[in-house]
Amino acid sequence: LALAENELRVNMGENIGGGWIEAQNSRGEVGLVPEDYIEVSEKTRGKDKISPGRAVIEPLLLSSLSSLTASLCISLSLSQASNGNDPWSTWNADPSGGSNSNWPSNPEGTQTGKGAADPWGPASQGHPQAYQGPGKFDEWDDEWDETKSTSGYSESGEAGGLQRGGTQASSMKISLNKFPGFSKSGPELYLLCKQIAKGKEKLPIYVGEVGPVWSYPETQIDCIVADPKKGSKMYGLKSYIEYQITPTTTNRPVNHRYKHFDWLYERLLDKFGSAIPIPSLPDKQVTGRFEEEFIKMRMERLQGWMSRMCRHPVISGSDVFQLFLTYKDEKDWKMGKRKAEKDETVGVMIFTTIEPEASDLDPLEVEQKCEQFSKFTKAMDDSVKEILTVGHEHWKRCTGPLPKEYQRIGKALQNLSTVFTSSGYQGEATLTNALTAAGQTYEEIAQLVAEQPKKDLHFLMETNNEYKGLLGCFPDTIGVHKAAIDKVKEGDKLVAANKITTQDKVTMAKRLSTMSYTLQAEMNHFHNNRIYDYNRVMQQYLEEQVKFYETIAAKLRQAHGQFTTM
Amino acid sequence: LALAENELRVNMGENIGGGWIEAQNSRGEVGLVPEDYIEVSEKTRGKDKISPGRAVIEPLLLSSLSSLTASLCISLSLSQASNGNDPWSTWNADPSGGSNSNWPSNPEGTQTGKGAADPWGPASQGHPQAYQGPGKFDEWDDEWDETKSTSGYSESGEAGGLQRGGTQASSMKISLNKFPGFSKSGPELYLLCKQIAKGKEKLPIYVGEVGPVWSYPETQIDCIVADPKKGSKMYGLKSYIEYQITPTTTNRPVNHRYKHFDWLYERLLDKFGSAIPIPSLPDKQVTGRFEEEFIKMRMERLQGWMSRMCRHPVISGSDVFQLFLTYKDEKDWKMGKRKAEKDETVGVMIFTTIEPEASDLDPLEVEQKCEQFSKFTKAMDDSVKEILTVGHEHWKRCTGPLPKEYQRIGKALQNLSTVFTSSGYQGEATLTNALTAAGQTYEEIAQLVAEQPKKDLHFLMETNNEYKGLLGCFPDTIGVHKAAIDKVKEGDKLVAANKITTQDKVTMAKRLSTMSYTLQAEMNHFHNNRIYDYNRVMQQYLEEQVKFYETIAAKLRQAHGQFTTM
Repeated sequence: LALAENELRVNMGENIGGGWIEAQNSRGEVGLVPEDYIEVSEKTRGKDKISPGRAVIEPLLLSSLSSLTASLCISLSLSQASNGNDPWSTWNADPSGGSNSNWPSNPEGTQTGKGAADPWGPASQGHPQAYQGPGKFDEWDDEWDETKSTSGYSESGEAGGLQRGGTQASSMKISLNKFPGFSKSGPELYLLCKQIAKGKEKLPIYVGEVGPVWSYPETQIDCIVADPKKGSKMYGLKSYIEYQITPTTTNRPVNHRYKHFDWLYERLLDKFGSAIPIPSLPDKQVTGRFEEEFIKMRMERLQGWMSRMCRHPVISGSDVFQLFLTYKDEKDWKMGKRKAEKDETVGVMIFTTIEPEASDLDPLEVEQKCEQFSKFTKAMDDSVKEILTVGHEHWKRCTGPLPKEYQRIGKALQNLSTVFTSSGYQGEATLTNALTAAGQTYEEIAQLVAEQPKKDLHFLMETNNEYKGLLGCFPDTIGVHKAAIDKVKEGDKLVAANKITTQDKVTMAKRLSTMSYTLQAEMNHFHNNRIYDYNRVMQQYLEEQVKFYETIAAKLRQAHGQFTTM
Repeated sequence: LALAENELRVNMGENIGGGWIEAQNSRGEVGLVPEDYIEVSEKTRGKDKISPGRAVIEPLLLSSLSSLTASLCISLSLSQASNGNDPWSTWNADPSGGSNSNWPSNPEGTQTGKGAADPWGPASQGHPQAYQGPGKFDEWDDEWDETKSTSGYSESGEAGGLQRGGTQASSMKISLNKFPGFSKSGPELYLLCKQIAKGKEKLPIYVGEVGPVWSYPETQIDCIVADPKKGSKMYGLKSYIEYQITPTTTNRPVNHRYKHFDWLYERLLDKFGSAIPIPSLPDKQVTGRFEEEFIKMRMERLQGWMSRMCRHPVISGSDVFQLFLTYKDEKDWKMGKRKAEKDETVGVMIFTTIEPEASDLDPLEVEQKCEQFSKFTKAMDDSVKEILTVGHEHWKRCTGPLPKEYQRIGKALQNLSTVFTSSGYQGEATLTNALTAAGQTYEEIAQLVAEQPKKDLHFLMETNNEYKGLLGCFPDTIGVHKAAIDKVKEGDKLVAANKITTQDKVTMAKRLSTMSYTLQAEMNHFHNNRIYDYNRVMQQYLEEQVKFYETIAAKLRQAHGQFTTM
C-alpha cells in the first residue's frame, strides 16, 4: 500500500501476522503496511498523546486490550525516530512528575487478566521483515531514502549543519476506529509476563562504588569510521556512499552504507530502547549528499555515534552490534539481519535478560531515584540547549560581523599608509611600512577569527548536540519506569479486585526492582561518560582558545615591532 | 543688541569702529554687535559661499570694495569656529583644484587701486575688544558660555564624548544690502600693500634637508595642564572650572578657565590663521560641565591642544602665547590681553613678518607644491575620517554586543556546572569546579573587552580627531594660497590694464614666494609631527592590544588547567 505522509483515517484490519497490518489510506486503497512504520498513539479522554518519533517501539507499548474500544490514532512514521519536537513538552505539563508519561497509559487502570490475548502475539514482538530482499521492500527503502530532512545549525544552512532539532518526523495521523487487533501493554507486559525465557542472553548488574553498574568488558571495543566511497547498484542506477568501519577487536574493515546504520539503529532501539537511551543517527539527507563537506560531516557524526555505542557494554556486546562490525560476507550479513529481526526479546522484554546481583530495592527508593534522574535529565537538557543557543549565536558572530570589523580596521590602516606614502616627505618609509604591516595583520586576524569556530566551538557544539540527542531519549525511558512504578503501586488494589494474585504482586515488585537497577546502571554509565566527555571537550575548547588568543597576540607583537621608537 | 541664532536680514550700518558693527535684527531692533562674532560671506553670481566656522578670520578676507555692491550675507557665529560641516565640501565641487576656494574671491578680479580705503582701517585689522571687562561684555560672554554644543562619539552620548563633527556652528544668516563699510581683500591685501611694517617680529624660514622649515628653538617648550578646580565670581553666582597650566620654561603655574583658552584660540586664529592651521579647542558644553568625566576629558584635550601649540615654533614663540603661559598677575593679564587685541599684524598681514632665507620660488613650483599639499591633505582627511568611522563602530561593538556574548557563554557554562553538581554522582567536583571557573573566566573576559577601548582605541581616536581638526584648517589656508596664485597669474593683465605697475607685479611674485615658503614650512612641520604622532599612537595601540590578548590567553590557560586529564 502506498501511503503518503500525513494521510488520515486508516481503518485497521486485523493483524495479518508477520508484522504486517492491513490499512486503508485516504484514497480508499486497502493494503499492507509494515508494523514497523506505524506509530500508534492513543486518544484517551480527548487528549492526543502522540509521542513524536520512536516509530518502532511505540506499538509495543500500546494500552491494553480494554482500551481498544477507545479510538486510536495511528501515526505512520516514514522516517527514523527523532527527537524533533521537544520530548519534554508533556513533562512540562505535569511538573509534579506524577504519573503522566509520554507513553499511552491504561486509561481504565485495569489489567485484562492473565494471559491476556496479545493481538501482536509472540510474532508481534518482532518486527516486519522489512529488509528481506529486493523488490517491493527495496522500493520502499528507496522511497524512504528519498525523504529529505531539514535540520541544520541555522536557517542559513551552514554546510554540514548540525542536527539541531532532529529530523522532522514525517508522521501520518490515521484515525482508527474499532481496532480489535492492536493492544500493547506498557511495562505490564514485562511486570506480569509468565515465562521468562532463560536464553543465553544475560546482562548482569553489579553494585560498585558509585552504585549499580553494568558489567564492563576488560578491553573496551572501539571502531574507526573512514574512507567514504561511492558505491552503486542496479548497474549504476542507484548510488550511495559507503563507509569503512574497522573495529579494534578484529582490525578487519567492513563496509556499510547509511541505510545499514539506520537498520542497526532500529534494531538497537527495538531491543534496548526501553532501558537504554539510543540516540538518533545523524540526519538523512537527499540533496547534496554527495557533497564533500556533507560526507565529511556525516562521517564525523557516524564515528561519534559508533564510538558511543561501542562504549556501552550492553550494546557493544550485543549480537546485532557484533554482526554489524564483524560480518564475514554478504550471506553472513543477510542471515544475521534476518535473525536479528526475528528477535523476540525486544521492548520491555529486555528486562527479562537483566540480572541485578543485589537485593531487591525498596519501591520508595525506586521512586526517589526515578524522580532524581527525571529532574537531572530535564535540567541538563535545558542547560545543554542554552549552550547550543549561545554557541550558535557566537558562531554567527565569529564568522560574520567580527571578522568584517577587523577587516575594516586593517583596510583603514592600509589606506592611511597609502596616503602617507604620497606625502612627498622624506623619512616616511618606516612608518608607512609599519602601518601597512599592521593593516595586513588585522586582515589576517579577521581570517583567524572566521576560521576559529571550526577548531574549537565546533566540537563543543557537536558534543552538546550528541547529549541533546541522548537526553531526548530519557523522557521515554523514564516514562516506562514511572508507568511501572504506578502499576506496582496499584498492586494491592489489583489483588483485591482479583485481577492479579498475591504472587503476581510480589513478582511485579521484584521486576520493578530489576527495572530500577537497570535505570540506575544506565544513569551511572551516562554520568561516567558525561564527565569524561565534558572534561575532554572543555579541555580541547580552552586549549584551542588559548592558542587562538596567543596567536593574535604574537601577530600584533610583530606588527608593533615594526614601528620605531622615536 | 540681543541677537538670537539664525536671525535674518540685518542691515548693517557703518563700521562704528572699535570693532563694533551696527546691525538690525529681525525684530527691527538696531544695535551693536561685535565684529568678532560675525561671519560674512559673499553672495556672488547667485552662489552662496558661506564658509562654515571661522567666525573671526573671515571678515578680514572679504572681497574688495568693488564687490560691495554685490549682496552680502552675514552669518553670525555665536560659537567658536568649528569644522562642523565638511570643510572639504566646496573642494569636492571643484576637484580640478582650480581657483575655487572657501574664501570669497574678488568677483570682478580688479583691485580698487593703491591705498584702497579699507573700511576696517588699521583698527579693523584688530579685533573688537570683546573681553574688556565686566558688564555688557561679560553678559555676552556668559550667554556665549551657555551655548550648548552637541558633539560626542556617538548618538548615545558616551560620557566624555569625542568631538566628532565639531561643534554645531550656531550661525545666523543675515542678508546684507548695500553695505558700504565691509570690504576685505583676500591675499591681495598682502600682495600689494605698500608699507611692510618692519617690526621686531621676524619669522625666518630656512631651507633644511627636508625643504623649507621654521626656525625651531633649541629647547622645545611644553606645559602641563592639571588640577581642575572650581572657581567662581560675583560672590559665587557664577561658577567655572579653572585649570592649572605649568610651562616647562618657568615651572610656575598659572590658572586659566576655558574662556581664556578660547580667547587665546581667537587671537592665534587672527594672527596666524592665514598661514598656520590653528585647530579648534575641545567643545564648549554647558550642561554637565561640572561632571567629573567631562572635566577629565576636557582637560585631556586642552592638554593635547596646548602641547600641539607648544610644538609649533611660531605659535609657542608668539607674545600672546607667552602671555598666556607666563602672565604675572591679573593686571599683567588684562594689559597683555588689550595689547594682543590691538595687534594689527593679523590675517594675511602675517606674511609681512615672514622672511625666507632662500631665493624666490618659481611661480610654477609654487603652484605645483600647492596642488600637492591640497591633494595630500584631502586624501589624509578622507583616510582619517575612515579610521574614525571604523573606530567608532568598533568601540560600540566592544562595549556592547561582544561583552554580552562572552557573558552569555560564561553564564551557560556556570549553569551547566550547577546542573552537574545536582547529579548526585560521585566524582563530579573537579569537573564542576573547573566548569564554574571557566564560566567565571568568560565573564571576566567580557569585562576586559568592555574596558579595553578606553585603554587603546581611545588614544587612536583622539589623535585622529586632532588630525581631523588640523586637516580641516587646510582648505582655508590653501584657499588663500590659491587665490594669491591666481592673483599673481593675472599680473601681466593687470599691468596692461594699468591697474598695477610693473614693480607691483614683481612685488606680488616675490610675496607669493614668501607665502609658498610659509606653506611649505608649515607642511614640513605638519609632516614631521604627523610621523611622530602616528608612530607614537600606533605603538601604544598595538602594545595595549598585545597585552589585552595575552591577558585573555593567560586567563583561559588558567581555566584550562583546572580540568584534569582523564
